[in-house]
Amino acid sequence: MKVFSVFGITQSGKTTTIENIIKELKKRRYSVGSVKEIHYEEFAIDDEGSNTSRHKRAGAELVTARGYYETDILFPRRLSVEEILKFYQHDYVVLEGVTDSNVPKIITAHNIEEIEERLDRTVFAISGRVSNEINEYKGIPIISSITDIEKLVDLIEEKVFEKLPQFLEECCSSCGYSCNELTEKIIRGEAKREDCSISQSNIKLTINDNDIPMVPFVQNILYNSVIGVVKELQGYQKDHKIIVKIGE
Amino acid sequence: MKVFSVFGITQSGKTTTIENIIKELKKRRYSVGSVKEIHYEEFAIDDEGSNTSRHKRAGAELVTARGYYETDILFPRRLSVEEILKFYQHDYVVLEGVTDSNVPKIITAHNIEEIEERLDRTVFAISGRVSNEINEYKGIPIISSITDIEKLVDLIEEKVFEKLPQFLEECCSSCGYSCNELTEKIIRGEAKREDCSISQSNIKLTINDNDIPMVPFVQNILYNSVIGVVKELQGYQKDHKIIVKIGE
Repeated sequence: MKVFSVFGITQSGKTTTIENIIKELKKRRYSVGSVKEIHYEEFAIDDEGSNTSRHKRAGAELVTARGYYETDILFPRRLSVEEILKFYQHDYVVLEGVTDSNVPKIITAHNIEEIEERLDRTVFAISGRVSNEINEYKGIPIISSITDIEKLVDLIEEKVFEKLPQFLEECCSSCGYSCNELTEKIIRGEAKREDCSISQSNIKLTINDNDIPMVPFVQNILYNSVIGVVKELQGYQKDHKIIVKIGE
Repeated sequence: MKVFSVFGITQSGKTTTIENIIKELKKRRYSVGSVKEIHYEEFAIDDEGSNTSRHKRAGAELVTARGYYETDILFPRRLSVEEILKFYQHDYVVLEGVTDSNVPKIITAHNIEEIEERLDRTVFAISGRVSNEINEYKGIPIISSITDIEKLVDLIEEKVFEKLPQFLEECCSSCGYSCNELTEKIIRGEAKREDCSISQSNIKLTINDNDIPMVPFVQNILYNSVIGVVKELQGYQKDHKIIVKIGE
């Protein structure tokens, strides 16, 4: 799953940019999901006095509204981006206004000052109102989503990669970097997505809580044996975490 | 996870009954979630023109709104109750207005006619406005959630059991019944929750932390596939606890 974020000040063209990107990605036959960060304290999606709101007030810790054409799962707390992305299995996920995630980013801005305030090493493109005036800033292309959407989405296809995990540096830096550093290096062309070592060994075995090391050959046999069965079951999704427990 | 449904005609006291049940369950230190079935075609939780609505119109297939104090995952389609319940890990989940799920049910009603129209073998209690007039119908207790909430929740604790899986009869009837029939028999006291053979087995499978129920036939295939490989490895002992993790 490829994830990127579009962020910038209000009225800089953020939602318009995202609408155009989503439409163009869909035109190219990708599946697309999105996440909208909402920056005002009072935000509640359901109306005060609605039945879902009454369930919450009574103490329900998770409330779902199921209609004929939509189903809304309402968590009464702020989830991390990593938690949210567990619900997604799309080719691309666009984050709107999310800045605290280690993904490639597009800034939308009115002018150079706004770009300068937000620019960091994860930014690979600039869009929004400023694109009417200039077409590059510090080597980063500035592209209008209104007049040049194909060029912008070409760049997304080129630059955005399968999301890296988000491990603490203390838990994993086996590629030589933190996940954030590797993200920046891939965007700058100084490293590759394949440099993330986590993606390489994918299966673990314990017997009575002891880790059993397996050579890659045996890993593959066990992996194929389990996946061979599990992928036929309802609930299976590629790349989901699978746990089989025997004799507990 | 124990799941039950409260259903009945509009204004029969459904939401009030659920509010009182949730409050009492929380008072008894249970974790509680809820699902609200919405019975009008035009339902959309977000306003026309809102940013999440613009993402949907542009083609996003899953949209999340993340605020400071809530996170709302918006599926632009009707999910089945089984799909919805995968998001829940609570002691109790209360369904409001859901009739197509094999769980114990409470009817809310104004009068006996409304009860009669809805009564089936999954109903273990009646509440709502009719509870001001009578206190039993065909052996089923009628209890007010306003004046007698403790008695109503005592009955919920007694009658509602860990949700059964929802297999088609052709896939599993190894207990001798369909899942719906076993649900009815447990509610009527003619069978026990433990009669479901799925829960007895020696092998468990989770995908992304969700338990995946398997019919005995599939349990055996997965068990034999894993043991077939693992028993050749150093460290294997018969009857030891084995855990295989993929993609963590």
